[in-house]
Amino acid sequence: MIYKAMKIDNLLKQVSFIKEIDKLKYIQRKTKLFNSDRHENDAEHSWHLAMMTIVLAEHSDHPIDVLKVLKMVLIHDIVEIDAGDTFIYDTVKNHTNTDEELTAARRIFGLLPTKQAEEFMAIWEEFEEGVSNEAKFARSMDRLEPLLQNTSNNGGTWKEFDVSYDKVYNKKKIIKNGSTILWNYAENLINESVEKGILKK
Amino acid sequence: MIYKAMKIDNLLKQVSFIKEIDKLKYIQRKTKLFNSDRHENDAEHSWHLAMMTIVLAEHSDHPIDVLKVLKMVLIHDIVEIDAGDTFIYDTVKNHTNTDEELTAARRIFGLLPTKQAEEFMAIWEEFEEGVSNEAKFARSMDRLEPLLQNTSNNGGTWKEFDVSYDKVYNKKKIIKNGSTILWNYAENLINESVEKGILKK
Repeated sequence: MIYKAMKIDNLLKQVSFIKEIDKLKYIQRKTKLFNSDRHENDAEHSWHLAMMTIVLAEHSDHPIDVLKVLKMVLIHDIVEIDAGDTFIYDTVKNHTNTDEELTAARRIFGLLPTKQAEEFMAIWEEFEEGVSNEAKFARSMDRLEPLLQNTSNNGGTWKEFDVSYDKVYNKKKIIKNGSTILWNYAENLINESVEKGILKK
Repeated sequence: MIYKAMKIDNLLKQVSFIKEIDKLKYIQRKTKLFNSDRHENDAEHSWHLAMMTIVLAEHSDHPIDVLKVLKMVLIHDIVEIDAGDTFIYDTVKNHTNTDEELTAARRIFGLLPTKQAEEFMAIWEEFEEGVSNEAKFARSMDRLEPLLQNTSNNGGTWKEFDVSYDKVYNKKKIIKNGSTILWNYAENLINESVEKGILKK
């Protein structure tokens, strides 16, 4: 009976979390859908990274636990429900693990049962640190998706916000930490973008 | 060298698939976001089911491979890119595995390298059949999300399309195949909805 009551208590907390994270669908990113003028939201972005993870896992340079990578990409932007989306080429606000994001993680993951909340915090922090094999691959996915989008959108946010080749190259090169073949592909796309005149050198 | 060329060939196919499935973000469902008037799209829905899977997996009555359930819920609606969303209470068109959906699965999953295409087809079919432990749990997730949405939206699609208690109960009771505790919770929500007057008996 105590076991059952605990299960129900867990479930109620989990449902409140499930309802809360619906708000991720309202967080607009700067990037737009493929060949499109419509902004992408964080829930769509997270789904796409999860699909990319499943499809591209074979290209990881290191052995990875795919389930863990999936958890990372599915939850990595949930903090933005409170902290908002930070543009990767923002010159004022740094994207990395701000105090605001940490507070957000504690509040939102804290809706879950304690053990689960701790697991989610640890996974999110591991992603942000970018050191483990899983985090490296997850971060490759996070960098690759907008690159594919911008090249399909005639420059996309690079043109819109006047971002130069060097800045793009610097942000994108962490793809290499996860996968050499994906980085080779990405580097080609960046260089081609300069040739096509959709990214300025 | 042959190995590397094969890897690159795989990657190009995978990228074409990754671009194609972006279209899932345009497929509108009948249901709306929580406490909202905005329709949900299939990509957002799939992300939410993936999050629910991670969070609620402990409530499965049967042992499940969570990675497999995640793959199921992430890809289960991709066929709707070609076949469109079928409303679960539609009286004319049946939701189950139509010829149209099968053709769509073959075309879209067929963009992937052969082995991966076969894996995706098998996972999608397993989900549609609903027999394996993983499929049962994945389908519980798929039934539970709109139930939570409709109860948060003062009846939502039940009211909008004049759906009765019996129909809702019949569609929702397959939650029981995946999890007794989730079904008990869902059954309570349905009964409370009648009491609140947002679902007619």
